[in-house]
Amino acid sequence: LISVSVDAMGGDHAPGEIVAGAVRFLRDGGSDAEGVRLLLVGDPGAIRAALADHGASEDDRLVIVPASEVVAMDEHPMEAVRRKPGSSLCVSARLVGDGTASATVSAGNTGACMVAAIQLIGRIPGVSRPAIGTAVPVMGGTTLVVDAGANVDCRSSHLVQFAVLGSLYAQAVMGIPEPKVGILSNGEEAAKGNELVKETRPLLEQSNLRFVGSIEANHLMEGEADVVTCDGFVGNVFLKSIEGMARLALSVVGDCARAAPENAGIADAARALFKRVDYSEYGGAPLLGIRGVSIIAHGRSKAPAMRNAIRVAAQAAKADYVSRVEAAFAGQKDSA
Amino acid sequence: LISVSVDAMGGDHAPGEIVAGAVRFLRDGGSDAEGVRLLLVGDPGAIRAALADHGASEDDRLVIVPASEVVAMDEHPMEAVRRKPGSSLCVSARLVGDGTASATVSAGNTGACMVAAIQLIGRIPGVSRPAIGTAVPVMGGTTLVVDAGANVDCRSSHLVQFAVLGSLYAQAVMGIPEPKVGILSNGEEAAKGNELVKETRPLLEQSNLRFVGSIEANHLMEGEADVVTCDGFVGNVFLKSIEGMARLALSVVGDCARAAPENAGIADAARALFKRVDYSEYGGAPLLGIRGVSIIAHGRSKAPAMRNAIRVAAQAAKADYVSRVEAAFAGQKDSA
Repeated sequence: LISVSVDAMGGDHAPGEIVAGAVRFLRDGGSDAEGVRLLLVGDPGAIRAALADHGASEDDRLVIVPASEVVAMDEHPMEAVRRKPGSSLCVSARLVGDGTASATVSAGNTGACMVAAIQLIGRIPGVSRPAIGTAVPVMGGTTLVVDAGANVDCRSSHLVQFAVLGSLYAQAVMGIPEPKVGILSNGEEAAKGNELVKETRPLLEQSNLRFVGSIEANHLMEGEADVVTCDGFVGNVFLKSIEGMARLALSVVGDCARAAPENAGIADAARALFKRVDYSEYGGAPLLGIRGVSIIAHGRSKAPAMRNAIRVAAQAAKADYVSRVEAAFAGQKDSA
Repeated sequence: LISVSVDAMGGDHAPGEIVAGAVRFLRDGGSDAEGVRLLLVGDPGAIRAALADHGASEDDRLVIVPASEVVAMDEHPMEAVRRKPGSSLCVSARLVGDGTASATVSAGNTGACMVAAIQLIGRIPGVSRPAIGTAVPVMGGTTLVVDAGANVDCRSSHLVQFAVLGSLYAQAVMGIPEPKVGILSNGEEAAKGNELVKETRPLLEQSNLRFVGSIEANHLMEGEADVVTCDGFVGNVFLKSIEGMARLALSVVGDCARAAPENAGIADAARALFKRVDYSEYGGAPLLGIRGVSIIAHGRSKAPAMRNAIRVAAQAAKADYVSRVEAAFAGQKDSA
């Protein structure tokens, strides 16, 4: 049995929607849910009440782990983890750190999730900087962008590690045997790129990754690579840009529907589709490079997003993503 | 009379659509076209034929300037300018450099336009690095992003200069008396940002610009600033990201319309609107910081885009943007 700890108190809609997502995963998760036990971490009374709302109760696959405190969404990450070791967020991470669980999911304070994962679960030896992966909807599929914001100033060796972490994740969890790996740049040619990209390209060419070269952001959106590496500053700009443009496009389509009420149906459909492409509310982002699976879900997550995040956590644990990374980084010099 | 030179041979649809745009500007440009003379640069026979297609001919406001060569879209910019001094692209720039024209517009090779502008028109003293401004459609308006790709690796002093160049442009051409200026970052807080952003923020705070702080890309799309400064690498990632997302959104809406044919009308409307928000085909991008107005139009430009680009060039020339920049940079140390 694989255990996944779930921070039942983290996120804007905790504990109700978090618990609802957990219940749905176990009920409707099919083979993904087979052999998976969920540890719901938080206030036992509140969790029990939320379970009751869905006609569920504690059993051998749905276990409540008490935690007395809650980390707020706007708390300073380092301080929160230091001052609230008994918080649901920290207890969830520690369950992975001590080997009780293989994976953890939280929709709580993103920074605190990262700090807790690094401090309480730990880096995999050889990984300099754990990074956030984000699965972005592109033409005809999904592309994993690493780093999505954890590491703002990077060296070329970091970008190579992000590429390795992402490629292994795409193999283990996204079901892509030989992921195409690109580096985000301002043009496809080798002569393009900033200094960091120009330094990193030859290292990626020499690696055993399936490196397909530099990729411009518009071509990323056309699905030219399965995994794209970049520093966390550029990753944030990319992700927030597409989020902003999606919202602008939605507003344009909405205006259009209001102008021609007989066409209102398509605006609803477009809105539904946009919800699907709104990566930030769909599933969660894996924190890559730590000694356990850690999925950070969006603070706005409701039950469907939580169910997806738990599914991804279970998949990564079953595919033994962490062992694959340990094997790949074995013998690498351990330097931050 | 203000003269604007137009590279009639530059772009995918030259000379037909270029000449058509020039004719339309003079015919339908209203007050924007008053007091403006266009110098159409290129093969006189081809230009005359294109004019005839629109029932137009050479006169005192539509003058043909012969140029014997054409720079191809894929030529190496530096080499093209060096090897083809008699090209329409170079002659157009030189007409500004020698004072014959106040502004120039080209839909040709972007890199070559930049090289020609810097070499044949020249930098304004004190401006370290001329930069490209791009007007991006945002919620409720337009935001000018500087640098859109000319300068990939930048120092903080460059980003401050981009902010000044953009702010003056917003005042002179976009009609915004006190433009709000932001810096593109991965969060609004002062503690966020990469090293370059953190170095630049205090300089912007000390400047006499109306600095509104760090802006994340999604908030840029919500119209939080009139001008946003960033290095050209990040600017390219931002612009190509929103372009890619707009195309993905368009494809989603198109699928939606095909699934419900009775709603096809709205897909057409959405497509029309997306055309409007497709900044890359609309108008042109000013090259800021040179001793004349230089507008670089997209290679795919057709007549409406060219008319817009010529209008922007005429506006900038009439508002004497260049003198404003010269005044602002007077006495600044001239260092690249």
